[in-house]
Amino acid sequence: MPRILILNGPNLNLLGTRERALYGEHTMEEHLEDWRQAIPEVELHHLQSNLEGELVEALQQAEGQYDGVVLNAGGYTHTSVAVRDAIAAIKVPVVEVHITNLLAREPFRHVSLTGSVCKGSIMGLGADGYRLAILHLLALAGSKASESN
Amino acid sequence: MPRILILNGPNLNLLGTRERALYGEHTMEEHLEDWRQAIPEVELHHLQSNLEGELVEALQQAEGQYDGVVLNAGGYTHTSVAVRDAIAAIKVPVVEVHITNLLAREPFRHVSLTGSVCKGSIMGLGADGYRLAILHLLALAGSKASESN
Amino acid sequence: MPRILILNGPNLNLLGTRERALYGEHTMEEHLEDWRQAIPEVELHHLQSNLEGELVEALQQAEGQYDGVVLNAGGYTHTSVAVRDAIAAIKVPVVEVHITNLLAREPFRHVSLTGSVCKGSIMGLGADGYRLAILHLLALAGSKASESN
Amino acid sequence: MPRILILNGPNLNLLGTRERALYGEHTMEEHLEDWRQAIPEVELHHLQSNLEGELVEALQQAEGQYDGVVLNAGGYTHTSVAVRDAIAAIKVPVVEVHITNLLAREPFRHVSLTGSVCKGSIMGLGADGYRLAILHLLALAGSKASESN
Amino acid sequence: MPRILILNGPNLNLLGTRERALYGEHTMEEHLEDWRQAIPEVELHHLQSNLEGELVEALQQAEGQYDGVVLNAGGYTHTSVAVRDAIAAIKVPVVEVHITNLLAREPFRHVSLTGSVCKGSIMGLGADGYRLAILHLLALAGSKASESN
Amino acid sequence: MPRILILNGPNLNLLGTRERALYGEHTMEEHLEDWRQAIPEVELHHLQSNLEGELVEALQQAEGQYDGVVLNAGGYTHTSVAVRDAIAAIKVPVVEVHITNLLAREPFRHVSLTGSVCKGSIMGLGADGYRLAILHLLALAGSKASESN
Amino acid sequence: MPRILILNGPNLNLLGTRERALYGEHTMEEHLEDWRQAIPEVELHHLQSNLEGELVEALQQAEGQYDGVVLNAGGYTHTSVAVRDAIAAIKVPVVEVHITNLLAREPFRHVSLTGSVCKGSIMGLGADGYRLAILHLLALAGSKASESN
Amino acid sequence: MPRILILNGPNLNLLGTRERALYGEHTMEEHLEDWRQAIPEVELHHLQSNLEGELVEALQQAEGQYDGVVLNAGGYTHTSVAVRDAIAAIKVPVVEVHITNLLAREPFRHVSLTGSVCKGSIMGLGADGYRLAILHLLALAGSKASESN
Amino acid sequence: MPRILILNGPNLNLLGTRERALYGEHTMEEHLEDWRQAIPEVELHHLQSNLEGELVEALQQAEGQYDGVVLNAGGYTHTSVAVRDAIAAIKVPVVEVHITNLLAREPFRHVSLTGSVCKGSIMGLGADGYRLAILHLLALAGSKASESN
Amino acid sequence: MPRILILNGPNLNLLGTRERALYGEHTMEEHLEDWRQAIPEVELHHLQSNLEGELVEALQQAEGQYDGVVLNAGGYTHTSVAVRDAIAAIKVPVVEVHITNLLAREPFRHVSLTGSVCKGSIMGLGADGYRLAILHLLALAGSKASESN
Amino acid sequence: MPRILILNGPNLNLLGTRERALYGEHTMEEHLEDWRQAIPEVELHHLQSNLEGELVEALQQAEGQYDGVVLNAGGYTHTSVAVRDAIAAIKVPVVEVHITNLLAREPFRHVSLTGSVCKGSIMGLGADGYRLAILHLLALAGSKASESN
Amino acid sequence: MPRILILNGPNLNLLGTRERALYGEHTMEEHLEDWRQAIPEVELHHLQSNLEGELVEALQQAEGQYDGVVLNAGGYTHTSVAVRDAIAAIKVPVVEVHITNLLAREPFRHVSLTGSVCKGSIMGLGADGYRLAILHLLALAGSKASESN
Repeated sequence: MPRILILNGPNLNLLGTRERALYGEHTMEEHLEDWRQAIPEVELHHLQSNLEGELVEALQQAEGQYDGVVLNAGGYTHTSVAVRDAIAAIKVPVVEVHITNLLAREPFRHVSLTGSVCKGSIMGLGADGYRLAILHLLALAGSKASESN
Repeated sequence: MPRILILNGPNLNLLGTRERALYGEHTMEEHLEDWRQAIPEVELHHLQSNLEGELVEALQQAEGQYDGVVLNAGGYTHTSVAVRDAIAAIKVPVVEVHITNLLAREPFRHVSLTGSVCKGSIMGLGADGYRLAILHLLALAGSKASESN
Repeated sequence: MPRILILNGPNLNLLGTRERALYGEHTMEEHLEDWRQAIPEVELHHLQSNLEGELVEALQQAEGQYDGVVLNAGGYTHTSVAVRDAIAAIKVPVVEVHITNLLAREPFRHVSLTGSVCKGSIMGLGADGYRLAILHLLALAGSKASESN
Repeated sequence: MPRILILNGPNLNLLGTRERALYGEHTMEEHLEDWRQAIPEVELHHLQSNLEGELVEALQQAEGQYDGVVLNAGGYTHTSVAVRDAIAAIKVPVVEVHITNLLAREPFRHVSLTGSVCKGSIMGLGADGYRLAILHLLALAGSKASESN
Repeated sequence: MPRILILNGPNLNLLGTRERALYGEHTMEEHLEDWRQAIPEVELHHLQSNLEGELVEALQQAEGQYDGVVLNAGGYTHTSVAVRDAIAAIKVPVVEVHITNLLAREPFRHVSLTGSVCKGSIMGLGADGYRLAILHLLALAGSKASESN
Repeated sequence: MPRILILNGPNLNLLGTRERALYGEHTMEEHLEDWRQAIPEVELHHLQSNLEGELVEALQQAEGQYDGVVLNAGGYTHTSVAVRDAIAAIKVPVVEVHITNLLAREPFRHVSLTGSVCKGSIMGLGADGYRLAILHLLALAGSKASESN
Repeated sequence: MPRILILNGPNLNLLGTRERALYGEHTMEEHLEDWRQAIPEVELHHLQSNLEGELVEALQQAEGQYDGVVLNAGGYTHTSVAVRDAIAAIKVPVVEVHITNLLAREPFRHVSLTGSVCKGSIMGLGADGYRLAILHLLALAGSKASESN
Repeated sequence: MPRILILNGPNLNLLGTRERALYGEHTMEEHLEDWRQAIPEVELHHLQSNLEGELVEALQQAEGQYDGVVLNAGGYTHTSVAVRDAIAAIKVPVVEVHITNLLAREPFRHVSLTGSVCKGSIMGLGADGYRLAILHLLALAGSKASESN
Repeated sequence: MPRILILNGPNLNLLGTRERALYGEHTMEEHLEDWRQAIPEVELHHLQSNLEGELVEALQQAEGQYDGVVLNAGGYTHTSVAVRDAIAAIKVPVVEVHITNLLAREPFRHVSLTGSVCKGSIMGLGADGYRLAILHLLALAGSKASESN
Repeated sequence: MPRILILNGPNLNLLGTRERALYGEHTMEEHLEDWRQAIPEVELHHLQSNLEGELVEALQQAEGQYDGVVLNAGGYTHTSVAVRDAIAAIKVPVVEVHITNLLAREPFRHVSLTGSVCKGSIMGLGADGYRLAILHLLALAGSKASESN
Repeated sequence: MPRILILNGPNLNLLGTRERALYGEHTMEEHLEDWRQAIPEVELHHLQSNLEGELVEALQQAEGQYDGVVLNAGGYTHTSVAVRDAIAAIKVPVVEVHITNLLAREPFRHVSLTGSVCKGSIMGLGADGYRLAILHLLALAGSKASESN
Repeated sequence: MPRILILNGPNLNLLGTRERALYGEHTMEEHLEDWRQAIPEVELHHLQSNLEGELVEALQQAEGQYDGVVLNAGGYTHTSVAVRDAIAAIKVPVVEVHITNLLAREPFRHVSLTGSVCKGSIMGLGADGYRLAILHLLALAGSKASESN
């Protein structure tokens, strides 16, 4: 069964408890439960950290452990060359997700340092973006599996 | 049954026939067939135009006709205030899709005029991005329907 | 009797039906009727197109047919060198009108490609800006007529 | 009878006497006489100052005294946050007028600090711009009067 | 007893009478009364002018007359090299105060020409910022007095 | 016999009739006649459109039909990602021609979106630039023919 | 008794031991002792961390625990979207303090990512800025207390 | 005898009394005395104002009264479109003088709004720059006088 | 017989010996031989220098000696005001040639200091660009000759 | 014996195991062994961390413990004011090393926040850059030692 | 007798023979003769070169040979760090002269690399600027002589 | 024995005689002597020129003559596309050296045109940077030699 890591960055531990108008009303735990029910053919793991260096390490260790990473690097999206370099150093496909539409927010959120080394990105579709990223990584894992047969 | 318009802009009529390494090997018709089979609970329509003004008109006319629009405005993404204004003028949710990861391409493709007035965007996931956008609009239509009950 | 062309660009066919808080509650047809009554000494014609190239052609053909053009190029104001070149190529005086105050909106609306080759511009005064532009072109036609006598 | 203040900034005391090719051949006094004759239903007042702070004060004092202000802030248009703040602090509608088409002149004249807090602006139509601004403010006063009835 | 000049720039004479949501509900006179009661060990003087040149002169004349200046240069903060040069020319410590948080307002308010030659600045704390600046200058005068003993 | 398409963009239908000091005194038809006489070993076709999308389509259809395209995209040179993408999508060599020296004109004409995907460009040499582009494409077709023998 | 958190970022553990000419001669502990004596009506807590993520966490946990935060984010002021988002996510008032006048230092210190989501800021007044921030938060807590009575 | 106006802007009344290391040790009055002795064939007048608008007026009134103006607009050099427009409106030759080498100071002093409409400028040569400007205007007046003979 | 100077700048002495994939496989001498055979009605001279000042001098001396200059200033194209001024100082028509398509290379090659004072430019067409420039200058010389008859 | 700290930042723990074409084929441990053999007269210590704050702390603690630091701050080079401030706060000489030539990579790697407060930097010479930095610090320690004798 | 070097850069050998409307009608030799007659108390030397490196060398060799240098570096003013470094390396006072008012010409002439390391500059006063620079250097030499007595 | 060329650009002939605080107290000749003694296994050659074109030529001729070049292009580092193109045209490894830390100096020295085509660079380590560059080229030559065995 494909294994996928959902890796959340700074302040995403507050999901569902603060700024709900912006980020939605459910906690990450509630979302995980939903996705596990809706997509039983994938094994979902979750990690959150407020520290840039811990995200770097989680990405480094994803190699060989996961078939894909769904990354919401939060504020580090716009400022971290270190996270970017970690993504570039691994071969696991990484899909970037943002809950809000960054282009409709402050200008400093329009710049992404991590985006160009991810496979792609989904933003503005709320927490549903995570589900879509999982579905994409699942499809990807499936096509790789059939290729290698 | 929810109705969704897939609206493609300039040069996307070439999909599957030119620059396949970049844009993939299937034509839009082949993709449509796949998505109709995979997601039978939605009615998919497709329109492609190389003319900026025709995209404007298609967006204007989507109001009241569709439950969602999946828009790949191609080159007009980066240059068209007219398309942007049309999106802003309608209430139908619009999800922007790009086949390639624009952040990994030329700088002029990093600027999106249309992005901030769409609900959100998906990019870099190949033609699979259209499928994910359809799934999202389907979920959205479902939750609206259950709200209004 | 002086002939004036009111030339409207993309999305202005929606006037009075969408985004009324921003653009006002009357359709262009209702406005035209008002202006024809209020300024009977001028012959008003109206053309709207969502296509950049059709605006180019309307401007080219205005030469010799009209004593003045009131142009609201909508989104093409900010992006169209082609419309600009058409204005520069003709001798008919062109007055640019914008319903809203562009300087109080998004930064990309602060840049006008067409403005510097028009005779002048009026913005932020709602649909009344069209009336003022007509009055100016009427005065201009009058002073030219009296000069040539 | 509606009362309108025409407020002119630096160097506009030279109107009609210097740089006539650019700014026209009539003095402000001659223009005022024309407008008073042409629009007898309005009471026109005129004030000119070369001092930024005096324009600030004239704007502050317009509140409650006038139904509208026609402002040509001259060179302060591009440099004065103080004048901008005075406009923003009052409720009297202010219409910005420029005799020349600023977009066809030096780049530093393309930036307006005052424009975004005015109701709108008219430029490039020569001194006729003042007349049009008066006509607009007159119409505005009329519609307000009929609203309050 | 230390003497401190509170020097207010353009539009600050409107304090407490206009745009109260932004600038607060009390006039400068009411504030002065409060501060004189709360901090009786200092002699407070107040000057307001809408003219850039008068602020320049007030700063020049503060030398030798005051132990500190609390300066709110209003709109001139962002545009006046003349005020900056006057601050640099005197040795009296000048503390810049802004009632609102300029960083949360328009971009042109993020640039300060005067800030780098002041001793420091306080902003966003409402009229309380003046009180804090007075307290700081008082402490400064105290430590200077004890140094010179 | 090699077939070459001369593809002209917006406002180039006015050639020889307006702004002659800038663009020259001959119409495109007169030029074509000259070039056909001077270079009889090539088959010249001509297409002009004011619509961006029609240029996109003409470029798409040039593939397989022509041995080379001489493109003067007019105002779209500076603004059209759509035209650029069409050039990049085809394998026919495209040579960009501009009648005037764009570097000696307004700054917005110094930026070319289409230039980097063309084979090369010729500008400032008047209508003679078309002739040189044809001669180059002719030489290119010749060397390809001899290579394939 | 109101509780206030003084939260110091990277390198501020060196206060009073290095670069004394720039940052002053006292350690944070000595300052805390002074402020506790001078302002006994407030309960002061202090936290310092060199890690961006630990500042994020301290801010998240301040909610409900403190009546105000005095934040000197040090170098993260200019680079951390993560710290900014943490400030925006909580309702405790945060006042930013900088010991030196950042506007008189290198250009990269003129940009503040955190400033616009704080209530306000104090800079350039040395360690006395902390005292003033405490006094402001104390006054704020007092007025809130009296409001809620 | 040619008449020349020396027009000094803000803070230049402090010459010789403050910041002597930067601006020199003599007052403007002492300099004037020197120049009158050294160049007796010219009639020197002097005016200083800290107000932008008064400089505008002095320039306007120089027309017909003086054969040349030596202008040191101080801080207004970098910020005043109003002073620039006054210079452009008169025909008297204006030579700009700056005591210090502005290119060796802060970046905002590298931008001159007034420079391009003056005849020329002298900077960095201390107060001697005024003397050189006078000598140039004298030579200019001489050559005009001999031309008109 | 018209005389034309081919003037090559730095590193063009390496043509045909280094970086052949970029610049082609023939030396300038081989090209010259070809062009002399293909265009016998023109007298071709060639000069190459790696020194900016020698190019300046060659351009100065071209006046009166040549009917046209084909200039490939190499790296000086992007950096030399001196070469630009030399071109502007002479009346001989200068056509700029670049072997590669500069718009498809590094950004610093997109800026041309010399381009706007040349008659026009040809780039990206390999060494064939020189031939086309010669043909253009030949046609120009012919039309001048017939004009003067 | 001089003591030198080699301090490596984020992702440098991957050295020799990932992206070998870019960063080389040896691990840091293998390099250390080589350098200890080649330069026995120095005592080498090594520390790697992916956390910005830990690098800050390592730099703070280097004071008094080491005679020099060889710093490769990885991605923090371009984004960390905190690391920069730590370097500036200590007196130990710090030499910056980068394995690759940053100027030949993405534009965001061309900006160094840490570089200007280091003694100097070495880049693009592969892991050999560390060796050269050690040799330089050794020479420096030697000359200091002989100076103090 | 003080010795002064007049050092002219590229294209200034054309003075008086080309572009006379811009640069004047006299050759440098004619000017030198005038200045030698008008200022007999100084020994004038003149050197012109079109080569950047020769200007560098002339500046290096001026040390100890001249009491002042009048430098018109022509196009190298805007592009040469090498000339700038040579000026900075010598102690002889250098006054920069430009015949035209660079601020009234192309933007690339508004940037001076050499200006900030010269003592000062004179521009826009035609060839008379050289005379004024000589007079200033003469005065300077005089005051130095009297100081050293 | 490996042969290495030390190539110095403008003003480096002044080394050890001027601006010693910045560039050090020894002449290049004294340094060469030191390096020849310290590294006898390499043959060192030295060339210095103030002319950009001569550096271009020296680089061109290094091909086949040297095993490595140590280049300090001085001021041309920041301005010369010609030098850059010469480095790119040859295969000899070039290491850039700067005596001072350019990042701690003026902004125009932060830009390097030559850096990205060199193998790498060393800066800020004084003249010792040359020694390190020689050591690196020596190691490189050694590893190439052993590879080819």
